Amino acid sequence: MSFPTIGVVGGGQLARMMAPAATNLGLRLTVLAEGDDVSATTAAQYTVGDYLDLETLRAFAAEVDVVTFDHEHVPADHLRALESAGVNLQPGPQALQYAQDKLLMRQQCDRLGLPNPPWAAVSSVTELLEFGDRNGWPVVLKTPRGGYDGKGVRVLRSPEEAQDCRDWFELDFEALLVEDLVPFSRELSAQVARTPSGRTATYPVVESVQTDGVCDLVTAPAPGLDPRIGGAAQEAAVALAEGLDVTGMLAVELFETPGIGPGFMVNELAMRPHNSGHWSMDGAVTGQFEQHLRAVLDLPLGSTEPVGAYTIMKNCLGGANQDLYSSYPGAMAAYPQAKIHTYGKSVRPGRKIGHVNVIAAAENELDEARAAATAAAAIITEGQEHE
Amino acid sequence: MSFPTIGVVGGGQLARMMAPAATNLGLRLTVLAEGDDVSATTAAQYTVGDYLDLETLRAFAAEVDVVTFDHEHVPADHLRALESAGVNLQPGPQALQYAQDKLLMRQQCDRLGLPNPPWAAVSSVTELLEFGDRNGWPVVLKTPRGGYDGKGVRVLRSPEEAQDCRDWFELDFEALLVEDLVPFSRELSAQVARTPSGRTATYPVVESVQTDGVCDLVTAPAPGLDPRIGGAAQEAAVALAEGLDVTGMLAVELFETPGIGPGFMVNELAMRPHNSGHWSMDGAVTGQFEQHLRAVLDLPLGSTEPVGAYTIMKNCLGGANQDLYSSYPGAMAAYPQAKIHTYGKSVRPGRKIGHVNVIAAAENELDEARAAATAAAAIITEGQEHE
Repeated sequence: MSFPTIGVVGGGQLARMMAPAATNLGLRLTVLAEGDDVSATTAAQYTVGDYLDLETLRAFAAEVDVVTFDHEHVPADHLRALESAGVNLQPGPQALQYAQDKLLMRQQCDRLGLPNPPWAAVSSVTELLEFGDRNGWPVVLKTPRGGYDGKGVRVLRSPEEAQDCRDWFELDFEALLVEDLVPFSRELSAQVARTPSGRTATYPVVESVQTDGVCDLVTAPAPGLDPRIGGAAQEAAVALAEGLDVTGMLAVELFETPGIGPGFMVNELAMRPHNSGHWSMDGAVTGQFEQHLRAVLDLPLGSTEPVGAYTIMKNCLGGANQDLYSSYPGAMAAYPQAKIHTYGKSVRPGRKIGHVNVIAAAENELDEARAAATAAAAIITEGQEHE
Repeated sequence: MSFPTIGVVGGGQLARMMAPAATNLGLRLTVLAEGDDVSATTAAQYTVGDYLDLETLRAFAAEVDVVTFDHEHVPADHLRALESAGVNLQPGPQALQYAQDKLLMRQQCDRLGLPNPPWAAVSSVTELLEFGDRNGWPVVLKTPRGGYDGKGVRVLRSPEEAQDCRDWFELDFEALLVEDLVPFSRELSAQVARTPSGRTATYPVVESVQTDGVCDLVTAPAPGLDPRIGGAAQEAAVALAEGLDVTGMLAVELFETPGIGPGFMVNELAMRPHNSGHWSMDGAVTGQFEQHLRAVLDLPLGSTEPVGAYTIMKNCLGGANQDLYSSYPGAMAAYPQAKIHTYGKSVRPGRKIGHVNVIAAAENELDEARAAATAAAAIITEGQEHE
């Protein structure tokens, strides 16, 4: 049989969660893992290797039909070298650069006419101060590369705080990104899948509550979202996927800004399955991991229709409970409707170790679903005694 | 972390489909596979070994926290030896004997007051003829052990056909099972999960259309089923699970017999996930494979609530198309709502190689869902050109 093998660079939970989707579809999946103990190694075939090493990447790519990614950290030079050698990379380096570099991403949003917050590339505290004085404080300073989950991001409330940022300008970047701190009403996420042939499929726009820069609670679809804003956000996601030649899943994190522009601004991009789409594993006809595999294989995309009125996704971040399995009896007995996902990772404070999905079949079950997902996740992270 | 390892004896598609459920819950799963090329080996950790060999079973059991099964073919003596040695078998030999031996199963149904068709143990053609003459022809003759998917079953329409069965009485069985051919309106299946602690959870009773003795099309729940018959069938499944001390998933295949007894009769039992429950992978909050893992680990059971009004499960049996993947573009483009499952098996005529689930969100979408599942499965088994 001609079933293809998908190679995933990186062995985190995103690679892990591609494995069940691959199994269901009869696809083979193998992971280039950072070590024997990373999340994906207990769920998929893998080989241990360093994604910073080009020869390792070449050898891995030689064994698979398509290469895709658990993260955006493969050096751009390596990606271009692999592409030149004929490796089927999905997404390719021409797209990934915009997920790797936030300055390039802002430029592209401007080019595509998509709503950015006021922003600038700044190379010194002087330029940073000029931006803040011109646009008003607070501002947000970001490293163009290497940041995630709130890392590489600083909110500066005053010129004095900007003065404290001298060390960031000594990092190995030509310039940093500074943006207006957008007065948003909430955070949204718009996901779209795109195939190399150009097929696209959008998911309903979701509400994402971040805590300390980390995704905490997702409600899909975003309750009470103005359908014009939702539609425009989906169109923006498709425009980015097409304009940047993204393949696989694209997540566009957004600020909802009612009354300003189209009602949202672009925050960040991720060119892979994304935490804000974990709800779809249980809450949509086609989950984002299956959709990503279909997309990178250039297969037709699956229905993104939700299976209930709403789905709640609550993240499990490492807490007091070190023995996650010990919390299963309590969480499962109290919440038989909870879809519990854990990632095979050891527990460290604040680390993403799992998530819980709960479907609200009908509109009026939303509050109950949110309470159930939150309580089940708390049992898992804090242990039964904190129920 | 104390996450347990589940050992599955047998590497067929049922073992394979436990792997995604294990991954989602962070559980480890390893399979005792018949060879490197069986269905589960591309989806789970495995070791190759012969389940007919007691020492192989002992060594496998020593590496896992609980042993469960892909099939019912492990010799009863071996199961008892493992149990005596303290192996955690779920289900145990005291239960499995009733799934292994149809004569014992009929005795137990009688003991539990559950509706059997008229039946007898017969050791000769003479006794078979006596049964047929007493109860009327046709009758069904079954080997007590070793049958599945229509094998080991013969329908005898007359005393003359019974005369042709002499060879079956020379097989290595003390007696064969003969039953009345029940004049049923359709076949149903009632599934229940039961834990070692005694928790049970029933699934909605489904309609199962068999073709040539093989499951072909399942509609969940069974359309138009009298709720009293459905409720009684679920109660019968629970009574069997409790009465036979079954753990894990139990499927009770039933004949619907409106106006006779409680409206159904027991046909066969399977003590494992079952083809008639594949709909639940996409159509219920907790699919039967996750439920089986929860049950054998003595965890609380998950909600069996359907996510749509109906789910259709259409089996893919080996047909003209040898290259299943080549049919994916056609099937996926035409039916984006179809949940396609293939088992990594080579194609042979009539072999179970996959299935397709389609959810009907509302009552009035049932016909459309059935048509979509049937057409998508046909593309997969017959190839795009037969669409």
